[in-house]
Amino acid sequence: QTKIFFLSNVWYSIKKRREQHAKRIIHSIKVGIALVLVSLLYLLDPIFEQVGESAMWAIMTVVVVYDFFAGATLSKGLLRGVGTILGGGLGCVAAILAEDSGKTGFTIVVGTSVFICGAVATYCRMIPSIKKKYDYGVMIFILTFNLVAVSGLRADKILELARQRLATIGMGFAVCIFTSLLIFPMWAGDELHHLTSSKFNKLACCIEECMEAYFSASEKKGQQSINVSSCKSVLHSKSSDESLANFARWEPWHGKFGFYYPWEKYLQIAELLRELASTILSLQACIESPLQPSTTLQQPIKETCKDIGLSLGVTMRELGESIMKMRRGKERVLILPELQFIKLESILSISELRAIE
Amino acid sequence: QTKIFFLSNVWYSIKKRREQHAKRIIHSIKVGIALVLVSLLYLLDPIFEQVGESAMWAIMTVVVVYDFFAGATLSKGLLRGVGTILGGGLGCVAAILAEDSGKTGFTIVVGTSVFICGAVATYCRMIPSIKKKYDYGVMIFILTFNLVAVSGLRADKILELARQRLATIGMGFAVCIFTSLLIFPMWAGDELHHLTSSKFNKLACCIEECMEAYFSASEKKGQQSINVSSCKSVLHSKSSDESLANFARWEPWHGKFGFYYPWEKYLQIAELLRELASTILSLQACIESPLQPSTTLQQPIKETCKDIGLSLGVTMRELGESIMKMRRGKERVLILPELQFIKLESILSISELRAIE
Repeated sequence: QTKIFFLSNVWYSIKKRREQHAKRIIHSIKVGIALVLVSLLYLLDPIFEQVGESAMWAIMTVVVVYDFFAGATLSKGLLRGVGTILGGGLGCVAAILAEDSGKTGFTIVVGTSVFICGAVATYCRMIPSIKKKYDYGVMIFILTFNLVAVSGLRADKILELARQRLATIGMGFAVCIFTSLLIFPMWAGDELHHLTSSKFNKLACCIEECMEAYFSASEKKGQQSINVSSCKSVLHSKSSDESLANFARWEPWHGKFGFYYPWEKYLQIAELLRELASTILSLQACIESPLQPSTTLQQPIKETCKDIGLSLGVTMRELGESIMKMRRGKERVLILPELQFIKLESILSISELRAIE
Repeated sequence: QTKIFFLSNVWYSIKKRREQHAKRIIHSIKVGIALVLVSLLYLLDPIFEQVGESAMWAIMTVVVVYDFFAGATLSKGLLRGVGTILGGGLGCVAAILAEDSGKTGFTIVVGTSVFICGAVATYCRMIPSIKKKYDYGVMIFILTFNLVAVSGLRADKILELARQRLATIGMGFAVCIFTSLLIFPMWAGDELHHLTSSKFNKLACCIEECMEAYFSASEKKGQQSINVSSCKSVLHSKSSDESLANFARWEPWHGKFGFYYPWEKYLQIAELLRELASTILSLQACIESPLQPSTTLQQPIKETCKDIGLSLGVTMRELGESIMKMRRGKERVLILPELQFIKLESILSISELRAIE
């Protein structure tokens, strides 16, 4: 049975790697298409005459905003839009206020407002909650505010310029959305969903491996090496999980994921799985230690432990599969009483051990 | 003794928070100063006449490149420079190759080169080793290549334009370096150094707390709550440690950190500390479990365990301090034999336990 699990794991990881490779190639092609589309603003004369040099901003938007996941592209694009509008608006206000104060006065007023606005916005960028979700938007705000406020004196047709830039940013964003959402969209939500359910499988394998190693032939005791890389990958998944959930919140309705889908639940499950992973890691350290209990101490608990290990594995896999397929665990009725029984049994054997003492 | 440790920890965390707040304010002011300095390119007539509209690129460079840590600012700035030069060069080549093929030919050749270059570079961005270190540089490469290749037909004086842009990006970078390195520099290396040594202290506190809880009055058993937040923060520090080490590598000689300082050693230490943290976490889970061994089983190991716990704590603190102050552990000679002795004793008491069985 263990060999079957092992083979299925190897097959799964090969499949996973090939899938990832294919996804990366698709993403690269999508970026290429988006770049060519946005370059047409420059390359086709009739459009260029409408847009002018501002077409540059469309290219910049595509390069900077386009991300692997649809949610990331959407959130960056929207934040860029909001940041540009807010920064541009405030910059116009600063430039208009400074206009009447003469040449030196203008320099002083604009300089002061640039300093204050830049410093305050930079401080905001470092507040963890803003940094996590709106960092990019605040950066664009600082950039636009600065560009608009400073060029107040230079560009007479500042409103016209602002309108044109906003329009080209919009065009760039439209190209991003078009290619990102319509051609093989990569949803951060899907990724989070698959990652979470595959973690159950990974941990189940680790538990079974530990169990196997502990009760294996005693001459090899203390030299067992258990493969814990998958366990460690679960343990260190916090930051990637959080960014995936963050992107997933921006994604529109797709597949089985509606609006207001409870993405934070995935983070809670991941937190619990990380705790389990840390327990497995120290279990592995115990098993690999040269100091091992005698076989006489192991014998009375062997059967119960193996039972617990096996049903833990089965339960974990079942949980992972039920999350993956979004259905209630089918063996719920079968598994729970069994675990209850095992719990009772294990308490009994522990008190038996105590009695031996 | 525990109370003193507790108070020193509270004091330490308050001090730490105030320091962090002060650092953030200093960083905000530095960004403000950098923005004002770079705005002078626009605001002062004599300079603006030299630079022209390209001054925009200087402002953009400051906003995008300026980061909290000096190393991050340096690496982003240099990557931006290299990306711009490479992208600009290749873009020029593409534009020149396409020039002779007439209007439609130009569009086709440039469109194809934009597609190929964009797709290949985007694929490179997703390779983990490149993503970790050079992501920003590759993005700038794509952007510059695209802008230069596409505007080949439009801008007759493309070399002049490229020279001007590169010059203004250089000016923006100079302003960044000037304010980032000369006014209260924040070194990523210092931060990594302090974080690593403070982790030892955190884990020592957790170990002592666990020891205390396990041997405390038996009536409260199973309801002990141990504060493991600091332990978890150590456990989840992988990604932040890695990015700090990445930035630290770019930083010039400062304080006690020379060139070729072995920053990867910090990552190795952090990895070991994370393993210890995961062991402590599962220790805590064991202590908080309602199923506890009888006091008769605890008594024979109580003294030895407390000794181990205390000397572990002392050793951890000593190690942390010796890393912090960059000196050899002064009590090395005193601690090691003691631990050896305790190890002997613990093996003895375990075999005693076995004898009881």
